[in-house]
Amino acid sequence: MSSVIGETVRVTVFGQSHSEAIGCVVEGLPAGFPVDTEALAAFMARRAPGRDPWSTPRHEADAVRIVAGLNASGETCGAPLACLIENTSQRSSDYDLLARVPRPGHADLTAQARWDGHQDVRGGGHFSGRLTAPLCAAGGIALQVLATRGVRVAAHLLQVGDVSDEPLAALDLDDASRARLSEQMAALQDGRTFPTILGEAGIAMTQAIAQAREEGDSVGGVVECVACGMPLGVGGPLFDGIESSIARAVFGIPAVKGLEFGAGFTAALMRGSEHNDPYEPAGDGLPSPTKNDAGGNLGGITTGAPVLFRMAVKPTSSIARPQRSVDLVTGEQVTLEVPGRHDPCIAPRAVPVAEAVMALALLDAWLTYPPHDTI
Amino acid sequence: MSSVIGETVRVTVFGQSHSEAIGCVVEGLPAGFPVDTEALAAFMARRAPGRDPWSTPRHEADAVRIVAGLNASGETCGAPLACLIENTSQRSSDYDLLARVPRPGHADLTAQARWDGHQDVRGGGHFSGRLTAPLCAAGGIALQVLATRGVRVAAHLLQVGDVSDEPLAALDLDDASRARLSEQMAALQDGRTFPTILGEAGIAMTQAIAQAREEGDSVGGVVECVACGMPLGVGGPLFDGIESSIARAVFGIPAVKGLEFGAGFTAALMRGSEHNDPYEPAGDGLPSPTKNDAGGNLGGITTGAPVLFRMAVKPTSSIARPQRSVDLVTGEQVTLEVPGRHDPCIAPRAVPVAEAVMALALLDAWLTYPPHDTI
Amino acid sequence: MSSVIGETVRVTVFGQSHSEAIGCVVEGLPAGFPVDTEALAAFMARRAPGRDPWSTPRHEADAVRIVAGLNASGETCGAPLACLIENTSQRSSDYDLLARVPRPGHADLTAQARWDGHQDVRGGGHFSGRLTAPLCAAGGIALQVLATRGVRVAAHLLQVGDVSDEPLAALDLDDASRARLSEQMAALQDGRTFPTILGEAGIAMTQAIAQAREEGDSVGGVVECVACGMPLGVGGPLFDGIESSIARAVFGIPAVKGLEFGAGFTAALMRGSEHNDPYEPAGDGLPSPTKNDAGGNLGGITTGAPVLFRMAVKPTSSIARPQRSVDLVTGEQVTLEVPGRHDPCIAPRAVPVAEAVMALALLDAWLTYPPHDTI
Amino acid sequence: MSSVIGETVRVTVFGQSHSEAIGCVVEGLPAGFPVDTEALAAFMARRAPGRDPWSTPRHEADAVRIVAGLNASGETCGAPLACLIENTSQRSSDYDLLARVPRPGHADLTAQARWDGHQDVRGGGHFSGRLTAPLCAAGGIALQVLATRGVRVAAHLLQVGDVSDEPLAALDLDDASRARLSEQMAALQDGRTFPTILGEAGIAMTQAIAQAREEGDSVGGVVECVACGMPLGVGGPLFDGIESSIARAVFGIPAVKGLEFGAGFTAALMRGSEHNDPYEPAGDGLPSPTKNDAGGNLGGITTGAPVLFRMAVKPTSSIARPQRSVDLVTGEQVTLEVPGRHDPCIAPRAVPVAEAVMALALLDAWLTYPPHDTI
Repeated sequence: MSSVIGETVRVTVFGQSHSEAIGCVVEGLPAGFPVDTEALAAFMARRAPGRDPWSTPRHEADAVRIVAGLNASGETCGAPLACLIENTSQRSSDYDLLARVPRPGHADLTAQARWDGHQDVRGGGHFSGRLTAPLCAAGGIALQVLATRGVRVAAHLLQVGDVSDEPLAALDLDDASRARLSEQMAALQDGRTFPTILGEAGIAMTQAIAQAREEGDSVGGVVECVACGMPLGVGGPLFDGIESSIARAVFGIPAVKGLEFGAGFTAALMRGSEHNDPYEPAGDGLPSPTKNDAGGNLGGITTGAPVLFRMAVKPTSSIARPQRSVDLVTGEQVTLEVPGRHDPCIAPRAVPVAEAVMALALLDAWLTYPPHDTI
Repeated sequence: MSSVIGETVRVTVFGQSHSEAIGCVVEGLPAGFPVDTEALAAFMARRAPGRDPWSTPRHEADAVRIVAGLNASGETCGAPLACLIENTSQRSSDYDLLARVPRPGHADLTAQARWDGHQDVRGGGHFSGRLTAPLCAAGGIALQVLATRGVRVAAHLLQVGDVSDEPLAALDLDDASRARLSEQMAALQDGRTFPTILGEAGIAMTQAIAQAREEGDSVGGVVECVACGMPLGVGGPLFDGIESSIARAVFGIPAVKGLEFGAGFTAALMRGSEHNDPYEPAGDGLPSPTKNDAGGNLGGITTGAPVLFRMAVKPTSSIARPQRSVDLVTGEQVTLEVPGRHDPCIAPRAVPVAEAVMALALLDAWLTYPPHDTI
Repeated sequence: MSSVIGETVRVTVFGQSHSEAIGCVVEGLPAGFPVDTEALAAFMARRAPGRDPWSTPRHEADAVRIVAGLNASGETCGAPLACLIENTSQRSSDYDLLARVPRPGHADLTAQARWDGHQDVRGGGHFSGRLTAPLCAAGGIALQVLATRGVRVAAHLLQVGDVSDEPLAALDLDDASRARLSEQMAALQDGRTFPTILGEAGIAMTQAIAQAREEGDSVGGVVECVACGMPLGVGGPLFDGIESSIARAVFGIPAVKGLEFGAGFTAALMRGSEHNDPYEPAGDGLPSPTKNDAGGNLGGITTGAPVLFRMAVKPTSSIARPQRSVDLVTGEQVTLEVPGRHDPCIAPRAVPVAEAVMALALLDAWLTYPPHDTI
Repeated sequence: MSSVIGETVRVTVFGQSHSEAIGCVVEGLPAGFPVDTEALAAFMARRAPGRDPWSTPRHEADAVRIVAGLNASGETCGAPLACLIENTSQRSSDYDLLARVPRPGHADLTAQARWDGHQDVRGGGHFSGRLTAPLCAAGGIALQVLATRGVRVAAHLLQVGDVSDEPLAALDLDDASRARLSEQMAALQDGRTFPTILGEAGIAMTQAIAQAREEGDSVGGVVECVACGMPLGVGGPLFDGIESSIARAVFGIPAVKGLEFGAGFTAALMRGSEHNDPYEPAGDGLPSPTKNDAGGNLGGITTGAPVLFRMAVKPTSSIARPQRSVDLVTGEQVTLEVPGRHDPCIAPRAVPVAEAVMALALLDAWLTYPPHDTI
């Protein structure tokens, strides 16, 4: 299996839910970047479990220990960066049953078919959402690098069940929309614990999640993510384009089932005259689009407009309600009630993961396929 | 830029709309496979332009010349397969203007920013939809290999504008659904020129496309694609999972703006108890899901149920209607009417491309991450 | 920079001489292999510093902590294996001078030019021979896997300065040679601390090394490595052949300056009638070569004969003798006497590294390019 | 099998000796480079067969048709470059026997074991030295790009059998050596047909080759290659260093059995005080080495001194003399006399291949791991 993503900034993720540690190796970061470990810890905290009523009671500090890749001054030094996160709160006994009865919606059965029982079944093993922690460590550093290049990234919960937040104002590029987008991004980074733009949306979503939990059930959601400040001309055609790179990473996040850019699926209903983004002069440089149904890229290359994607997150597979499964030993139909500690909605914690993935894909594209790439 | 996709079966695509030829190199095919060149030609014809009122008047035979990789008996021989498709119908004069005025919705502007005028502007160059022809050549062979392993792939136009075809019956796995899916797939492979399951849907879509053309406009659509017969246990977690691999390739197809698997974006509205696919005993082997909201994979590994995706295709960017753009020489706002020969709806021709991409991703996953992958 | 080697069994190495830890991530090991951690520790000890008069006084336990990739039974589980080796004996003050005056023979100057002073200068940073420890951790596991497949690997010090050991009897394949090779390999694995076949060669080499040390100098050597038991048919042509894969890894070992297979450079002096290895019938299967000037592979594919390489190791660059260098701050010529703890001959410790590299290359080739690779 | 080399400038080679065509795809060349097709043809002619008494009578024009990757002005355009060389002079009947009786020294037997008879046996198939033609096409373009950056590459036949040419004066860096090296490189590029520095060496080598031919035999040789003008600071540690990259490519050239850099195997006999290259001030910039036993790189990064390697080429495997082999059908020992047209010494034609490989490795390293690689 490949646990690697990226071409120039290449991230290798390792670990299982209940291994001693999880972590990542990040190759290809330019030398001389002073990693802000406090800011990284703050970013990690946004994904970490156990903070809120809407997340799993499993508590993990998710402290990132950078064991290699920095020089004596704490700057990147050209060597691969290695990040380690110790697993401290495993309760393996919760999972003894699971080697025998695969949980619907999880990878228990498919992993069994792939590895014939040698897979690490504890806590979902390598399939655990916990593997998004090292992805966030790598992405958190990418976000810092991008910030020094004038790129800001933000994501929010657009939807939980049938409750919606205000969409990011990134499809229009008029002054009012730009101003609103700026306010939205600022709001999302003010330290709020629940990642919606509108407070009332957050309250309604929290209630929807709480209700699902009470009913022994879970609920899905949609995460929307934007990056502002990318220059025109980053990326390339075909399989390493902006959309392909983001897509490969996004579908590597457990529970994601859909992805769209800009107008997305709505584009299918549109006419070309409506969907095409016209150009207008932009000072001395190349022209700019006047709107952004393209979601900030054409032909896999950034247009200079905000890069915008939405990803659908399925409801958490682990639910308390009884479900039909099969005992692998007896071959008989059984009823399973999944024990353990679980998020009734995984989407809120997927919000920083979306930002991490956006940052990694954009930084990698910038370093690999930069503007003015000529002899 | 990376023109390569796949890990074991690795496809490198080359060519521009108006280069002498386009083509691909396919590494990693097992030796001894007798390529059926007639079947390949028939598959290529489904994508080829110029057949129908709904497609561009540019005529290309798209004959695939396999210049390397076969032994004297016409079997794969372990060496890379090289496919060449000559470009025969270039009319470059159509495009002289385009180096100067970027077409909205195309990659003209972004390519200019990336390569400072050295890009091949003729016909969209390397960004042309024509590059899907070599992808279909590679995919057409992958489809043949998969067929010998019991896997069938089919795609159809689910939607054009607001006209819909019957969805593939692949989310439910009861006997009636299985039977209907089988009928649907057979129908789509009966040689029909317009790729819908229902004839009336095809007629209505053709009308919608014709109307867009009459109005100097274009229209978008949704392609739905299914693969039946994949065994349980193919694929892996994280970034080379079934969904990630398909996603990277799908977003490499020009004009795709959205992708979803199984229940897709609908999953955001669902409860876990509703979305999770329960298991039931399945004879001597491992259990099977009783329905397929997962779209045939969990944790990036196939479940044995049909692999199902939908992709949103934006309306063709080239439209006859006047559009706002900028003259790159004078820097002034101009009105552009795109000349040349164009599909008013690219989605019908994207149908075999979806099949090609599905086949390449699944064959590659099967050879790279097979079931029972133990010591 | 790329710290990755291998296609299916892919090893990512990280760490610097004085980072908190060094280590590696090993992807692609088949699941279900019970790692023998005691045997691994014994293998690591053969490379570890500080055991003998001929090696550096720096003491490192080089205990390998496998933090991820094993299931609860200690078997590989399909997820990447992550190995961590803590750095415990750094004395950074030794190296303060080195940021300013580059040591001849080291990468101090070239790293400065690449990273403008941001490189980690302590102990040679990412260029340190210490990075061969994680390579040995990965290779030590590969050796264990190969052993279960009937492959044995052994290396020895063929030469130190002008003192030679008996060559491995792997170029001839007659019964006497096979018997002698078997004895040689057994001898090298009997726990002897100095890796020569002949005891007297070891004594003479130790003396040569001691003499170099007394003179404040260092001395080079040649390591010879063999693998027996590889089946016929593993590998492939061009750039992933057996020789290419070993070569890429071998020249990644610090201080290696030459590599040859089988008859090696001697082949330049030979006639084809002399160098070609004739075939003779071999029971029911395919024929076998009657001698082995090819070094066990033709066209990058194993012949079934022993795989044999020799690598030249330059004298340790760190020497006590005064050397000419330049002060990077003043730009003036200075005389440098390298402080710190160093091996006067690095070749003995390169012996297990050669085995590690051989094992990784062969296991990777076997899993990626196996015999009978047909449809 | 992997037919790909390079990280940024990535070359995929395809073709067999008797396929319709051979060729390559070159990704990652910067846009805007005007390919000099005449110069490329002249470079190809140096490798092409059939010119001289010392090479095979098979005549191939080896005209390179660039079918994709150039814009209308003949410049690279950012899209992959695709080169096609038609095979025009196949005489397959020569090879009918070879599917049955493997030729000693060739890959016939090993390919049979790998692909069970499906390999293309005609002319050695994918293992043919003919595959170095597309490598030269790619390398010829890389040489042109390097020339615009001030880098010159030259190679010569250092040795054929026991006849030697004058070595390249690249190990010393005093004024006399620099002047001599310059003369040597100029001489090698004056259009001479036999690639030695000294005319008398060429005559003696030609005689040695002719004699081998008369005796129905073949003879080996050593090729030496140098690159001047590389700046200090290109490359990186571990597996993508200058030496590793060159090594992987060099051992992908059929018939190469040994490789060494700088002092090479001689380093094993040297003391550190002798082998280390001292530094001296070099104007305003970083210091320079005063000699070049390192062969122009330390820690896989260029020192600014000439990059120098030597590669051992085994005697041509195809010889007229009778050899022992086995009939794969009957399993019986037989005597084989290899029919067909063959070089009695392949080393002269390997000289431009060495230059091609040097150029590709250095250009790729420069674009991937450049000096001043900081934030």
